[in-house]
Amino acid sequence: MTTRPPALVNQPLDRIETPALVVDLDAMASNIARMAAEARRLGVVLRPHAKAHKCGTIARLQVAAGAVGVCCQKVSEAEAMAETGITDIYLSNQVVAAPKLDRLAQLARTARISLAIDSPAGLEAAARAARDSGIGLMVLIEVDLGDARSGVPPGPALVDLAKSVVATGNLRFGGLQAYRSHAQHARTAAERRDLTAAAVHTIARVRDDLGATGITCPVVTGGGTGTISYAAASGVYTELQPGSYVFMDAAYAAIEDESGGPFRSFDTALFVEATVTSASEGRAMCDGGAKAVSPVGRLPLVVAPADLSYYAADDEHGRLRWHPGSAGVRVGDRIRLLPDNCDPTVNLHDWIVGVRNGRVETVWPIEARGPGL
Amino acid sequence: MTTRPPALVNQPLDRIETPALVVDLDAMASNIARMAAEARRLGVVLRPHAKAHKCGTIARLQVAAGAVGVCCQKVSEAEAMAETGITDIYLSNQVVAAPKLDRLAQLARTARISLAIDSPAGLEAAARAARDSGIGLMVLIEVDLGDARSGVPPGPALVDLAKSVVATGNLRFGGLQAYRSHAQHARTAAERRDLTAAAVHTIARVRDDLGATGITCPVVTGGGTGTISYAAASGVYTELQPGSYVFMDAAYAAIEDESGGPFRSFDTALFVEATVTSASEGRAMCDGGAKAVSPVGRLPLVVAPADLSYYAADDEHGRLRWHPGSAGVRVGDRIRLLPDNCDPTVNLHDWIVGVRNGRVETVWPIEARGPGL
Repeated sequence: MTTRPPALVNQPLDRIETPALVVDLDAMASNIARMAAEARRLGVVLRPHAKAHKCGTIARLQVAAGAVGVCCQKVSEAEAMAETGITDIYLSNQVVAAPKLDRLAQLARTARISLAIDSPAGLEAAARAARDSGIGLMVLIEVDLGDARSGVPPGPALVDLAKSVVATGNLRFGGLQAYRSHAQHARTAAERRDLTAAAVHTIARVRDDLGATGITCPVVTGGGTGTISYAAASGVYTELQPGSYVFMDAAYAAIEDESGGPFRSFDTALFVEATVTSASEGRAMCDGGAKAVSPVGRLPLVVAPADLSYYAADDEHGRLRWHPGSAGVRVGDRIRLLPDNCDPTVNLHDWIVGVRNGRVETVWPIEARGPGL
Repeated sequence: MTTRPPALVNQPLDRIETPALVVDLDAMASNIARMAAEARRLGVVLRPHAKAHKCGTIARLQVAAGAVGVCCQKVSEAEAMAETGITDIYLSNQVVAAPKLDRLAQLARTARISLAIDSPAGLEAAARAARDSGIGLMVLIEVDLGDARSGVPPGPALVDLAKSVVATGNLRFGGLQAYRSHAQHARTAAERRDLTAAAVHTIARVRDDLGATGITCPVVTGGGTGTISYAAASGVYTELQPGSYVFMDAAYAAIEDESGGPFRSFDTALFVEATVTSASEGRAMCDGGAKAVSPVGRLPLVVAPADLSYYAADDEHGRLRWHPGSAGVRVGDRIRLLPDNCDPTVNLHDWIVGVRNGRVETVWPIEARGPGL
C-alpha cells in the first residue's frame, strides 16, 4: 500500500497538489542549528523527540547537527527510526505488551535502545524480553512530576523500583525520565520557569534518594521546546528532548518570552497548503480540513492571504470567512495554513514537501506516522 | 513505504497488537444488509459514502449487497476505489484543480465517474479536463440547503449554471447534490424529519425551476445515516448516500428514534482496542490516544471494562479514570473503545482488523486513508 506524493522535485510551490504538508527548509535548518548550538553551549546532551516530525530524514539532520539520537513514543516509531539509520533511540514511554518488547529487543541488536518504565509490571515485562532475547536493555524510571499522567511519584516505591531494575541483571538502570508536560505551553516565561524549577527540585530529591542507596542516575532526561533554557541551566537535567522546535507551530508561537514579547526562539517552518474549492459572499471552503490539519488544539491560522480566518474544520474541508471590504478569495486560489499543533498534523500526512525559495527541493516520506503500534 | 498490520489471521482478538482498529464482521454485515434492504424497499438507489470506511473491500461488500457504487470526497479516494474494482464513483464534492480533474478524467476511462460542482469556475475547470482528455464527465450541481458550506443557493444563478453545463457539450448534467449536513445528527427524530422536509421542499422547487427551462434532473442524491427513511420516502431523492451506518459510532448511537428511544437502526461495529500502559490509584493511561481514536467530536466511550471513563486524549495516550470501589484496570489489561466519530478515526489507521466470534478473520488495508489529494 503506497500513497501518492503531492509534489515533484523542482515544482514551484504554487503548482503542487493540495492539501500538502510543506516545510520551509531554511527555517527548519535554522531551528535545528540553533537548538544544537544551545545544547552545546549549556553542556547538555540533545535528543530531539521524533514524535514531532516522524520523519527519518529530519532525524538524520538533527543527528548530523549534534543530537545523540532521538526519542520516540512507540515501538513502530523506533523501528522506522532504526531503519533510517538512527543508532540511539530512547522510548520515552511505557511499553508493556510482550510482542512490542520482543520487537524492541530485536532493535537493540543494531541500535542503542532504552525505554521508560513506571511500574513493577512494566519492569517485569521488559526484563522478560531482555532475558528471552539475550539482549540487555536500558531502562529509565519515569517520575510523576505532577502532570497526573504516567510516572512514579517521588518516594519509597520509586527507590524500590530502581533497586529492582538493578537486581534484574539483564536491565541496566539508566536514570530518570522527567518531562513536565504542563510547563511547556504555559503562556508566560515566568510560569514556565517556575514550573521547571519545581520539577527540578523534585528530580534532585529523587536523584539524591537514589544516591543514598548507592544508585546513580547517569541520565536525567526531559524538557520541551518551551522550557529548554530553564531545564538546561538547572544542573539536574543531563539531556533535553524537545520536539516541536524543529517546526514550531501556532501553539508555541503564542507563548511569551522573558520580555513578555512573542516567543521567537525558533521560526515557524511547517505549513499546510490548500486550495479554495468553493466561494460565496464573505465565505469559502478549502480542501484543507481535519484530515489535513489536525483539529487537536485550536484551528489553524491562515498565513496567506491576509484577512482570512479559518473558522471551522470539516473532515475534508476548512471553512473560511473574510471581512467585508477584504479582497477575499476565489475558487482555485491557494491558501497557506499554520497548524496549531505540529505533531498530530504531521501524523495525518504520508509525505512532507521540502521547499526553498518557493520551489520544491525534496519530498520526504513520514515513515513513523500512524497509530503507533 | 508500508506499515505493519496489528494482527494476524486466526489470532484471538485479545492477542492482537494495540492500538488497533477492529470491525465486528457480523454487525457490519447486518448493517450493510439492512441498509440495502431499506433502499430496495423504498425504491431508491443506494450509493454509500466511502468516506466512512475508506476501504476497498468494504465498498465491494456494499456493492455486492446492492449498492450501485460509492461516493467519495477526494480524487485520491476515487482512485483507490477504482483500483479495488468499484466501477461507479461519484465525487460528492468540488474538484477544481486542473491536475486533479485530469486524474479524474483518466479514471473515467474505466469507471463511471461523476462529480459535484457549485461555481462557473468549477464548471469551466471540469469542462477543460473533459475537453483535453476527450472523455465526457457527468456533473451534478450542489444545492446550498442552508448548511453555509458549499453549494449554490436556489435561484437564477443555479439555473444558469445548469444551462452552462448543458451548453458545454462534453459534460452531462446529472442532477442535484442535495446533502443536508445539519440534519444528520439532530437529536430528535422530529428535528431530523423537519430539516429533511424543508430540504426536500427546496430541492423540489429547484428541480421544478430547472424543468421549466427544459432541464431534467435524472439524479437527486443526498441523505445520511440519520435521515435515510425521510429522504427515501420524500419522492424527491432518487439516490441515498449514507456512510456511517456501516459502522455506526457513538455520535449516531446518541440520537433518538421516532419513539424517543435510542436510534438502533444499525449496530455499533467499529472499535479501537487498546492496552493499559500505566496505572495508579483511580487512574490509568492506555495506548489509544488521539493518533488512534479521533478527537473530532467527543472523546471515545469505554465499552469494556465497565466503570471506566476516558477523560482526556494525548497524542499517544488515552487517560482513564474509575470510581472508587470499581475494579479498575492494571498495567497490561485490554480495553475496548467506541469512537464518537468513525470517519476521522478510520483515517488514522492503515489497517482494519475484521473479527468474528473473538477471532481475527481478516485484515484489510484502508486504501483510501490519508489527507485526500
